[in-house]
Amino acid sequence: MDLIARLRAGLPGEAILTDPDVTGSYANDMASFCEAGTPAVVVLPRTVEQVQHVMRTATELRVPVVPQGARTGLSGAANASDGCIVLSLVKMDRIIEINPVDRIAVVEPGVVNAVLSRAVNEHGLYYPPDPSSWEQCSIGGNIGTASGGLCCVKYGVTAEYVLGLDVVLADGRLLSCGRRTAKGVAGYDLTRLFVGSEGSLGIVVRAVLALRPEPPQQLVLAAEFPSTAAACEAVCEIMARGHAPSLLELMDRTSVRAVNAMAQMGLPDTTEALLLAAFDTPDPAADLAAVGALCTAAGATEVVPAETAAESDLLLQARRLTLTALERVKSATMIDDVCVPRSRLAEMLDGTAAIADKYDLTIGVVAHAGDGNTHPTVCFDADDPDESRRARESFDAIMALGLRLGGTITGEHGVGVLKKEWLARELGPVGLELQRGIKDVFDPLGILNPGKLF
Amino acid sequence: MDLIARLRAGLPGEAILTDPDVTGSYANDMASFCEAGTPAVVVLPRTVEQVQHVMRTATELRVPVVPQGARTGLSGAANASDGCIVLSLVKMDRIIEINPVDRIAVVEPGVVNAVLSRAVNEHGLYYPPDPSSWEQCSIGGNIGTASGGLCCVKYGVTAEYVLGLDVVLADGRLLSCGRRTAKGVAGYDLTRLFVGSEGSLGIVVRAVLALRPEPPQQLVLAAEFPSTAAACEAVCEIMARGHAPSLLELMDRTSVRAVNAMAQMGLPDTTEALLLAAFDTPDPAADLAAVGALCTAAGATEVVPAETAAESDLLLQARRLTLTALERVKSATMIDDVCVPRSRLAEMLDGTAAIADKYDLTIGVVAHAGDGNTHPTVCFDADDPDESRRARESFDAIMALGLRLGGTITGEHGVGVLKKEWLARELGPVGLELQRGIKDVFDPLGILNPGKLF
Repeated sequence: MDLIARLRAGLPGEAILTDPDVTGSYANDMASFCEAGTPAVVVLPRTVEQVQHVMRTATELRVPVVPQGARTGLSGAANASDGCIVLSLVKMDRIIEINPVDRIAVVEPGVVNAVLSRAVNEHGLYYPPDPSSWEQCSIGGNIGTASGGLCCVKYGVTAEYVLGLDVVLADGRLLSCGRRTAKGVAGYDLTRLFVGSEGSLGIVVRAVLALRPEPPQQLVLAAEFPSTAAACEAVCEIMARGHAPSLLELMDRTSVRAVNAMAQMGLPDTTEALLLAAFDTPDPAADLAAVGALCTAAGATEVVPAETAAESDLLLQARRLTLTALERVKSATMIDDVCVPRSRLAEMLDGTAAIADKYDLTIGVVAHAGDGNTHPTVCFDADDPDESRRARESFDAIMALGLRLGGTITGEHGVGVLKKEWLARELGPVGLELQRGIKDVFDPLGILNPGKLF
Repeated sequence: MDLIARLRAGLPGEAILTDPDVTGSYANDMASFCEAGTPAVVVLPRTVEQVQHVMRTATELRVPVVPQGARTGLSGAANASDGCIVLSLVKMDRIIEINPVDRIAVVEPGVVNAVLSRAVNEHGLYYPPDPSSWEQCSIGGNIGTASGGLCCVKYGVTAEYVLGLDVVLADGRLLSCGRRTAKGVAGYDLTRLFVGSEGSLGIVVRAVLALRPEPPQQLVLAAEFPSTAAACEAVCEIMARGHAPSLLELMDRTSVRAVNAMAQMGLPDTTEALLLAAFDTPDPAADLAAVGALCTAAGATEVVPAETAAESDLLLQARRLTLTALERVKSATMIDDVCVPRSRLAEMLDGTAAIADKYDLTIGVVAHAGDGNTHPTVCFDADDPDESRRARESFDAIMALGLRLGGTITGEHGVGVLKKEWLARELGPVGLELQRGIKDVFDPLGILNPGKLF
């Protein structure tokens, strides 16, 4: 019996897509420079049982399975491989429970981040992780890639909000791991192992997520600096003095200009670095005043605290537009995701500027500065082979620099196809061997998202 | 060549203890009812290389290794097995780095929790995890058992503060995993896998820990309730309304009386439940007032906010004395560690009282109420075989109740020897199989702390 017929035995007709024109549109996530194959079929299950049927079928027939959420990922982790089953979880999008006493939500993987965020807001609760794609990306994808966002400097990453998971294993068995309690240490932390595993260990079909009380509306300050180094000095001072900003973002001159060019936001075109700091504390104006003084001491030429929520929103909107704006600079971009200790952030930014010079390229940098997490974005002409080669080389040079500074090749975007070779470099042979050993325990046949991570 | 001679080849003489009178004193941690064997030797290395030598020797000779910190654990995870090498990490007790900009500390495993806490305080920083044994217990032990404490309701458990680890593997190779950056998602989270693994996957020889800014001094409120159910209602209201107490503890009548009997602290002897709530916010008095009103609404008969830090310390001291006080009720105690969703806490406490009645035993309960984490402490006469049997049965009945209420058998004390059978029940066969698979990847010969966890 062939694959499609076998799938039909446990899935309704509308959950199986075989038209190549349609299935082809599921081949990629949003990463550049990542190979993608042609799927044999796309399945869109609505129940756990249907997912189990897909995995049992895949195991019997030894067919690779590529799990997908909203395909907003930036590392190719959701890219199809030739002949694979694309297992899209977007139809499993129910919010099963929101519990204000236990401060948890129980959700299916296809729930969109923003939908969940708004739903919990109505209960006075807050789900912090906020990747740039939060209006599109799914919770399952966030878990698979261990997404971050702007809020991480105060509230941490997706991993810190995943308490328990139901996972369909490679052979179709259902595993429940973790908990719905505030604490729990019963055995090895399998839940955490699945977070960031890019679908290579199992298919998440349900998640218990931790929530927080909704904080007060944040207020944002913008500070202009004559150099990225001065802005980084301010970042270090802010964090060393014990401040707890809800956001601490840096845009370099290239980013600021790109945003102005696209959206005429009136950002200061002549500044070398724009720092945005926000506080959602009981008295944000007082915190902004203190942080503004630190910025001035570090050399800021202008410090402008927003006085209203509307002004704050405008500044955040400018920040959130950066990647889209940088995409307009040239025909293509490659966005990097190197995270260094924040004490090394200035060196990371100076080094990135030197790399841009060396390779004669435009590289705009936006950074979650409070986390030391930079997104150098290489802008290039994809039709120019030499510029494309230089783009790829500069991208690698940026990762090498991050590792030299004690950092990691990926703060929040993951490895996927894009950074496989670099993962091996970062982990070293011993770490890589153990990671492969874990993969073999969960997926002995190697059918779960093969060719990703390792 | 025999074991001792082989060890001497890579360890100084004073690092090897073979006198049975001495080595016998390393046989146990602080758990009751847990078997312990007789070690062949105790080693006290001071360097990573010495630990590697121990593990290489153990691998060559197939000798089991039991890693130990300060042996304050409560589940027998550090208990010796017959003929084992006890690998005590207490001499590796250097604080290597405290970095206020990166908000991290780098430490060796033998550093005592309180020593680290005080050292980081001097830099205006805070290492939150605070197990009851914090004046004795070591960071390595805290990592091995994934310890909690009083602060968890606001600041989380040890796992959330471990960013990176250096680990000597079973065969003596050195693994560096994790990071010293604020974020990082490069591959599976091996760091988190080691936390709570009770020395069964490798020997932690260095840890990068996350720190927070030191919060303001907390202020404590005490509220008396006519029933544990009423106190639990207050707990649920406090959390559902979005308050962020830095501590939310419950002592039942038995606990309160035991503390008074031992230390004449003047706690209200007649109350059925005493709730302690604390805030380390900018305006703790205002928060205590709001929470006091919620307690009154839930039926509190008396609400007493501390007005000074000294009054707060006295209340905390009473709370911290509880286990010691309960140990004086009878000749022996068994302390349980069941964590339930906080919405089920009242049922957990009523059910525990019913179990005490059924088995005709005194069971004092102290709880990290904000986390739903209860420590029912069974007091019994160890010389009375029937009472001892009933104690063990009631201990198991409490875990069964916790699982029925959607909880876990261990919120923060771990599994060790004490709860091996219960771990299998909680995980189920699929989870257990995967956990054993992971164990085999890291320790194919089964020499690392055998007989624990599974």
